[in-house]
Amino acid sequence: MLNVGIVGGTGYTGVELIRLLSMHPQASIATITSRTEEGMSVSEIFPSLRGRLDLTFVKPSIDILGQCDVVFFATPHGVAMQQAQDLVDTGVRVIDLAADFRMKDLTHWEKWYGIDHQARQLLEEAVYGLPEINREKIKEARIVGNPGCYATAIELGFAPLLSSGLVDSSSLIADAKSGVSGAGRKEDLGIIYSEVGDNFKAYGLRGHRHHPEIVEILRGIAGTDIGLRFTPHLLPINRGILATLYANLSVPAAHEVRSSFEAFFENEPFVDILPEGQFPDTRSVRGSNFCKIGMQVSEDASSVLVVSVLDNLVKGASGQAIQNMNIMFGLDETMGLNGLGLVP
Amino acid sequence: MLNVGIVGGTGYTGVELIRLLSMHPQASIATITSRTEEGMSVSEIFPSLRGRLDLTFVKPSIDILGQCDVVFFATPHGVAMQQAQDLVDTGVRVIDLAADFRMKDLTHWEKWYGIDHQARQLLEEAVYGLPEINREKIKEARIVGNPGCYATAIELGFAPLLSSGLVDSSSLIADAKSGVSGAGRKEDLGIIYSEVGDNFKAYGLRGHRHHPEIVEILRGIAGTDIGLRFTPHLLPINRGILATLYANLSVPAAHEVRSSFEAFFENEPFVDILPEGQFPDTRSVRGSNFCKIGMQVSEDASSVLVVSVLDNLVKGASGQAIQNMNIMFGLDETMGLNGLGLVP
Amino acid sequence: MLNVGIVGGTGYTGVELIRLLSMHPQASIATITSRTEEGMSVSEIFPSLRGRLDLTFVKPSIDILGQCDVVFFATPHGVAMQQAQDLVDTGVRVIDLAADFRMKDLTHWEKWYGIDHQARQLLEEAVYGLPEINREKIKEARIVGNPGCYATAIELGFAPLLSSGLVDSSSLIADAKSGVSGAGRKEDLGIIYSEVGDNFKAYGLRGHRHHPEIVEILRGIAGTDIGLRFTPHLLPINRGILATLYANLSVPAAHEVRSSFEAFFENEPFVDILPEGQFPDTRSVRGSNFCKIGMQVSEDASSVLVVSVLDNLVKGASGQAIQNMNIMFGLDETMGLNGLGLVP
Amino acid sequence: MLNVGIVGGTGYTGVELIRLLSMHPQASIATITSRTEEGMSVSEIFPSLRGRLDLTFVKPSIDILGQCDVVFFATPHGVAMQQAQDLVDTGVRVIDLAADFRMKDLTHWEKWYGIDHQARQLLEEAVYGLPEINREKIKEARIVGNPGCYATAIELGFAPLLSSGLVDSSSLIADAKSGVSGAGRKEDLGIIYSEVGDNFKAYGLRGHRHHPEIVEILRGIAGTDIGLRFTPHLLPINRGILATLYANLSVPAAHEVRSSFEAFFENEPFVDILPEGQFPDTRSVRGSNFCKIGMQVSEDASSVLVVSVLDNLVKGASGQAIQNMNIMFGLDETMGLNGLGLVP
Repeated sequence: MLNVGIVGGTGYTGVELIRLLSMHPQASIATITSRTEEGMSVSEIFPSLRGRLDLTFVKPSIDILGQCDVVFFATPHGVAMQQAQDLVDTGVRVIDLAADFRMKDLTHWEKWYGIDHQARQLLEEAVYGLPEINREKIKEARIVGNPGCYATAIELGFAPLLSSGLVDSSSLIADAKSGVSGAGRKEDLGIIYSEVGDNFKAYGLRGHRHHPEIVEILRGIAGTDIGLRFTPHLLPINRGILATLYANLSVPAAHEVRSSFEAFFENEPFVDILPEGQFPDTRSVRGSNFCKIGMQVSEDASSVLVVSVLDNLVKGASGQAIQNMNIMFGLDETMGLNGLGLVP
Repeated sequence: MLNVGIVGGTGYTGVELIRLLSMHPQASIATITSRTEEGMSVSEIFPSLRGRLDLTFVKPSIDILGQCDVVFFATPHGVAMQQAQDLVDTGVRVIDLAADFRMKDLTHWEKWYGIDHQARQLLEEAVYGLPEINREKIKEARIVGNPGCYATAIELGFAPLLSSGLVDSSSLIADAKSGVSGAGRKEDLGIIYSEVGDNFKAYGLRGHRHHPEIVEILRGIAGTDIGLRFTPHLLPINRGILATLYANLSVPAAHEVRSSFEAFFENEPFVDILPEGQFPDTRSVRGSNFCKIGMQVSEDASSVLVVSVLDNLVKGASGQAIQNMNIMFGLDETMGLNGLGLVP
Repeated sequence: MLNVGIVGGTGYTGVELIRLLSMHPQASIATITSRTEEGMSVSEIFPSLRGRLDLTFVKPSIDILGQCDVVFFATPHGVAMQQAQDLVDTGVRVIDLAADFRMKDLTHWEKWYGIDHQARQLLEEAVYGLPEINREKIKEARIVGNPGCYATAIELGFAPLLSSGLVDSSSLIADAKSGVSGAGRKEDLGIIYSEVGDNFKAYGLRGHRHHPEIVEILRGIAGTDIGLRFTPHLLPINRGILATLYANLSVPAAHEVRSSFEAFFENEPFVDILPEGQFPDTRSVRGSNFCKIGMQVSEDASSVLVVSVLDNLVKGASGQAIQNMNIMFGLDETMGLNGLGLVP
Repeated sequence: MLNVGIVGGTGYTGVELIRLLSMHPQASIATITSRTEEGMSVSEIFPSLRGRLDLTFVKPSIDILGQCDVVFFATPHGVAMQQAQDLVDTGVRVIDLAADFRMKDLTHWEKWYGIDHQARQLLEEAVYGLPEINREKIKEARIVGNPGCYATAIELGFAPLLSSGLVDSSSLIADAKSGVSGAGRKEDLGIIYSEVGDNFKAYGLRGHRHHPEIVEILRGIAGTDIGLRFTPHLLPINRGILATLYANLSVPAAHEVRSSFEAFFENEPFVDILPEGQFPDTRSVRGSNFCKIGMQVSEDASSVLVVSVLDNLVKGASGQAIQNMNIMFGLDETMGLNGLGLVP
């Protein structure tokens, strides 16, 4: 049984970690920390947890967290980089759900996140926690940077095409739409119901923090430079990301598109390639760890359209983090993650 | 042409005043004030106003506001009571959309709003701006306290029954449901989309500020004490209040129930009594100044059910305020308020 | 391992049965029938099931269903009553999620459902599947009538008060609000998104089919006649019922109210009584089998308010059906039903 | 005062025509026809109209409609083409809100709509009712084909770029998202709340009827062939279309992009070009006749992003139809269309 610590349990990725871990047969939550809510029962903030969990927020400390096998950081960016090194040094394996350990390019990172990185050495050894491309490295990783939600959807949707060289890597467009929970649980005028409900908009058009993360990973997959236009939009739904992806085919190879996906994700337990003519909706993965993908080549075989969906709090955050934990500790990769999408 | 001033134009009642006044043939917005947004174009916050209005927020001052015929306070409670006396003294007529001038009972008011009232003299002469019961007084009023949104829906739904003595005034229940815009435009964790969307709850069960307001008005109508249980709920919709009202009939007078409503609201331009067997939904009044009411007596004629709906930002706030303005200045009461509900 | 049959798998209670059973360690879906979709893959209608289930709809027949240990009818009312007797005769235990076996009062049933009952003998032995009041009978039942969603929420909310004689049983009011999935998966103008979204209304005010069901059960609990006003409303949410219940206290026994709930539901695995001052929202039970209840006595101790929530597709339908199955077959009552509410 | 007839008033474009015309000072609804609802009061279906309108559906007939100045067809496609010729022959001017008179290319039309066109002669003289490109022709038109909702948003967003030759006309992508009311008021499993609410998906990926309409119009503007990928998505909102448009710049002319829009739409009363860095949301045009457009050139000046929004029932249907009526009869083009967007 793994002893799990969670740093920062008052946000949506935190409560989702708790929900998912409560169904995991080989993991037990040893401690949940929160500076602001120390002493409060976790289920007072999230009554959905009542009746199954009896946990109280404690102040974070190396003494307590150091006794865990694995610690998840469900905090805003900038927190994990301050505490991860100490934990790793004591032998605790760390999975950061924020952005501190996702990118290798420090210049880009510091530009987008507006702070200096304080764990540069650890960053070097950190592994990007996308099992579908990094499974072997994740097994041995002491520190995993869990991918962003947009990033996961877009990277999985483009990976087979870039890996196989089927598309012009300079022509990528990701028109992505996210539910509001992706913005976190925070007091922010822009995400109150009356601003978002029965409404729809694009945002972040001057640049979004996931853009350099995605480019860095796709460049690695393609082995060449990437030209990516990325337009995030805000959906009036709680959970779910749907990314509509466009790329020009570099050769008129309509038939190879589908087979590139089937080959790339063969045996992947959480990527589901839909049959020809079918495209996924966000609810089909609500609460589940699946990424579902549909695709279509244009009639003239000049371009390809890919639709990729996931639950931003599961495969886009906490579910993927647990998937990484399973890999790191040699457990069945799907353990605790077998829940199906909640429909409707 | 009336010169209109608006104090506090950055909230939802403010932008709704502007929207409605832009269609009013006899009113012109002379000035909009905001301490926090001084110098900013109003349409930068509310792009829906672009192309029809060219207004910039100014700092509130008696010099500017004193030149208006009428000033609306679309501010939180506690603001109008500090500035209204000066305006009234210079001959400006004032309509407060917040709670400062709604209740005569200072003890209750100060208990519920947690501050001392700073305009007690003005409060004495203030008129409660519910035209259906106070039209004559509103005509002459220098200062009007515009009713709360829940209060308007519930008072109009109970008024005929209490006025006619048909119901036991100690048995009233108001099970009321409101859209989120009733909570205002503010940073508040409880009203972010992810907390409210695809969700429903009761709230304010230890007491809601509209309760004493409603009781005070209903007591005046009934001429006797009132026993009212009031349960507000939060709906995942933008606009709209639906109040489901229950009362025990004091006499088995099923037929008189409907006629009491028809008589009470005869010639009322904004109260619509639906035919037998029909009940209103919130969208039927979306964006309009109507209050629509349906009712049904129980089979055994022991009790009555009333369903009352309105748009909390129109008949529940800014529309009613303009209706009051029309009355105060001898204009056609419906002027500028003829828009029909936006369906769907 | 139980062999489970599902009759009618194309609706929301059907797909929810499948989702929940896929996590049940001691049950295996042997067959899913649908007359209209024979031969189609279940996951073609519900892609959320892809990757974990490989089932195809078959035509219903006694040959196939007769080999199951238990058969769920996730059909409209009127279907189970035609097929249940044959199944029971072959030793299959039957759980009907529709209304055919809920009520003993045939006159009421035939009036409300508009058809003649065709399994009167079986109806006599049928057990109403509300474990919190009928657990012992359910253990031995050959045929269970699974309660309605509104009925479950309202009955659990009133049961302790009526059982203990604390309230005037003639004064009950249930102001209930349901998500749209309660109306089923069918082509109906009244439930298309554009009629329901950003909207709210009461409906069924001339009478709702769950009313006589609730009255029959509550009468049994109270041991006396029941006066119940029941007002259903339609919420723009997918899942969830919230019932706001009112009753007059028969004695001014404020303290005994809470203890009556705690005693009545002591050791109940799926009823969660919230602490004083807390009230549940629908999302706290989204996807879970819990019914959560909060309550408050009025200041003058004359009346009590109860708020009861559940997921209409889980504790209000498919989850409760599986809970009944667990009881009938001597399994741990919570088996396969440990999922926590999906928040947000 | 214009006498207006409406054929088919039971759908959303019908009720929206009525709502808008009720505020039009120079138009009066003379008759509303419906075969299915003959004799029923219009406000029984749409209670939002109560109190301002007293109209009853009549059976459509040339006798009645022939006395109107203008007749709107708010019917499904295939109806107007059967009745328009007779009306035009009697001197009535006709505006069809469906698709019968939008396209000149009969082959494409008959392929996509699956029926033979029965008014080919009239089609030849029909004018596509997009005032921003066809104003002069609309003035004299006897028959106007009112543009589709997607088509209006996308055509207005691409028109300046194509007209000025700034973009590669073979590289167009329209990633468009529509509220559910665009699908009409009909019994259809795919648009019930439980299928659409808290959900998001792409649809129509094998081809959408608006695609050939858009291509035909854009080809006319560009004077050359068009390559357009068009991906419609279904938003869980009532009203609103947001089209995210992508195109490659044919020359690195970043500064000319904005000026091309400002020039193209100079003096247009209903197209609002937002300032640099601002992008519209759907609610900013809810209930109004505006199309609002924001744009951005990529950093390397290789491509342009345009965001175009409108209310599918107003500028995308009934509002644009009235705008066309105003033009046809020499009225102020904005008459009756001055309502601002309903926010929130």
